[in-house]
Order: sequence, then C-alpha cells, then structure tokens
Amino acid sequence: MSTSRGPYAKSARVRAAAIEAAAELFGTTGYRGATFKDVATKLGMTAAGLTYYFPDKDALLAAVLQERDRPALDQDTAIPPSPSRADITDHVMRILDQNVAHPGLAELHCVLSAEATSAEHPAHEHFRERYRRARNLLTEAFETAQARGEIRSSVSPGTLATLLLSVLDGVQLQWLLDPEGVDMQATVRAFIADLLAPSESA
Amino acid sequence: MSTSRGPYAKSARVRAAAIEAAAELFGTTGYRGATFKDVATKLGMTAAGLTYYFPDKDALLAAVLQERDRPALDQDTAIPPSPSRADITDHVMRILDQNVAHPGLAELHCVLSAEATSAEHPAHEHFRERYRRARNLLTEAFETAQARGEIRSSVSPGTLATLLLSVLDGVQLQWLLDPEGVDMQATVRAFIADLLAPSESA
Repeated sequence: MSTSRGPYAKSARVRAAAIEAAAELFGTTGYRGATFKDVATKLGMTAAGLTYYFPDKDALLAAVLQERDRPALDQDTAIPPSPSRADITDHVMRILDQNVAHPGLAELHCVLSAEATSAEHPAHEHFRERYRRARNLLTEAFETAQARGEIRSSVSPGTLATLLLSVLDGVQLQWLLDPEGVDMQATVRAFIADLLAPSESA
Repeated sequence: MSTSRGPYAKSARVRAAAIEAAAELFGTTGYRGATFKDVATKLGMTAAGLTYYFPDKDALLAAVLQERDRPALDQDTAIPPSPSRADITDHVMRILDQNVAHPGLAELHCVLSAEATSAEHPAHEHFRERYRRARNLLTEAFETAQARGEIRSSVSPGTLATLLLSVLDGVQLQWLLDPEGVDMQATVRAFIADLLAPSESA
C-alpha cells in the first residue's frame, strides 16, 4: 500500500506513462521519426523534466522493448516443454488475439523491426537476437512434433520455424494496412492447418 | 543525343540523383526519420537548391515510390495471362533475386511499408492499393492453376495470395536483420514446393 503513494510511486507512474507515450509515438512515427521532446510534450512535460526519469531517447527505446517483450515471454513459458501440434496452434492464435486486441503493439513491432534492419539502429541487435531465439524455440517444437508424426515432415523444422514467423509478420503488415481487406486469423489458421498438417494427410 | 546535354539533361540527372539519395535515406532512416535537408546535403546541395527539382519531401517520396515500382511492374507484365505453377514460381524467384542483388531496395520496401501502416502516412494509400492489386493478381493466378490441378486446392486462392505475399515480406525482414542466419531463397522455395504442391500430392 505504501508503494502507491509518495515520491517512489510517482516516479513509477511517470516512468510507466513515459513508456506508454514513447511506445505509441514509436509505433506511429517510428523511433527515428519521434524526438525525445515529442515524448515529453505528449506527457505535458518539458524535455528537461523527462530526463529525470529517462536520460535520452535510447533509454526510452530500451524500456519500451523490455515492456513489449513481457507478454511474449509469458506466452513462451505457456508453451509446454514438448509441445503438441495443438499447443503450437493455441500459442500462435493467442499471439494473434493479442495483436488484434492491441493494434498499437502490433504496429510498434512492425515499425521498430523494420527500422531495426539498419545495422546502425539501436534496436538492431535486439531484434536479430529476438528472431534467432524465436526460430530456435519453434525449430525445437517442430522437431518434437515431426518426430511424433503430428506435422508433415516434407519441410525441415528450421524452415517451418522461419516460415511461421514470416507468415505472422507478413499477414500482420497487410492487416495493419488494410484491416477490412485481410482476415489475419483465418489466413494464419489456413497456413497452420495446411503446412503443419499431420503426416498422414501429407 | 541532344538530351544528354543542356539544361534539360542536367535537370534529369539531378532529379535521378535526388531520387536515389532519397531512396537510400528513406531505406535506412525511414521517410519520417529523414529530412528534406538531409537529402539535399547528401547531394551536396542546399535545401533551397533542391526545391528547384522537388518542392518538398512528399514529392520526393512520390518519385521514389514511382521509381521503385517500375521493376515490379515490368515483372508483373512478365507473368503470362494464365500463368502455370512454373510461371508463378519463376516470377517469385526473380523478385527474390532482385532483392538479394539490391538489399537497399528491399530495405526501402520493408521500412516504408511498415511506416505506412499509420493511416496518416503519405504513402498509406499507395501501399494499401499496392497490396490489394498484388493479392488480386495472385488470386487470379492461383484460381487458374488450381482449376488445372497444378496447385493443391485445400487452401482458397485468395488465402494463398495473402500467404505468399506474407512469406515474401516476412522472410525478407528476417533476412535483412540476419543475412547469415536466414536463407531467404531456400525458405521461399520450400514454401512454394509444399503449399503450392500439385493436387496429386496433396
């Protein structure tokens, strides 16, 4: 209870509000399109005032990325160690539901990951490592599922991992550009149903 | 021959150089991260001097998008009216070869399309329409190919169109972030071989 009042609580509240404001700005105008002062203005603060909480725009970006990854990590831990095909499907559909519920987060990922393809971008390493981890995690999951005959084995587990992540990012881009024109969930479901079909029907 | 000299030729040369400089800057820092003055500086000009050729950054963006679409349109016309599965595969692999040869163009597409998910972005309509056209074109191609039994029919032509474009964009993002870690061409080839498999093997 004591943490909801006093200077520490105020600092935590301002930090949380700054991370939210920065995430929204980075999602709409990109990290490079938004200035430190833009974030401060959105919060009704001066840039000097905001430096009390975050020294610069890179520190804001680091906090945004850390915050953004939290739900994903929770979901990762929600996959059991040797996931079945149904576990993988559930996991993917949960990520999609989350993106539909929070299009701002989806846009943030879309814009920051694209910007970060440039080797000089401060989030370049972050995204490269994030995708490597995701590919490794999914590759192991597909190895297990293929060994059990739950997924067709005509495509290697590593390629399936890269493909599934590609489909998620690519469908999301088209859906963000054209929400009425693209049924993101149905498209991903069709991909999973077909490419991750049990080996009997392959 | 007379067009290679004189004031008209100089104007065309400066315009072409400005489009190239803008494309490079937009690809690395995004449309929003780059200023009109940045483009002028890259050309060794003043911003006032550059306005003689392009009134503002939006005009530069329009010229970059127009220039960027030229090779894609050439490729579209290279698809015959009722393409076979092999025609579609050739077309896709040609696009990939082009992207591998010109990673700067691939990055430009990746960054601008992501930025353009924001409804206020000046290229929003451009990308929404571009993807609609591409989906329509591919949907028709897949309808023809499915009718001939060249492609499995368990997934609808419209969904296959969305999926193929998604795979291309998504694999490209992972490849741009991590060229050593991702074999873009092998991944796309596996997708085509499997999801676009003839109906006999489906």
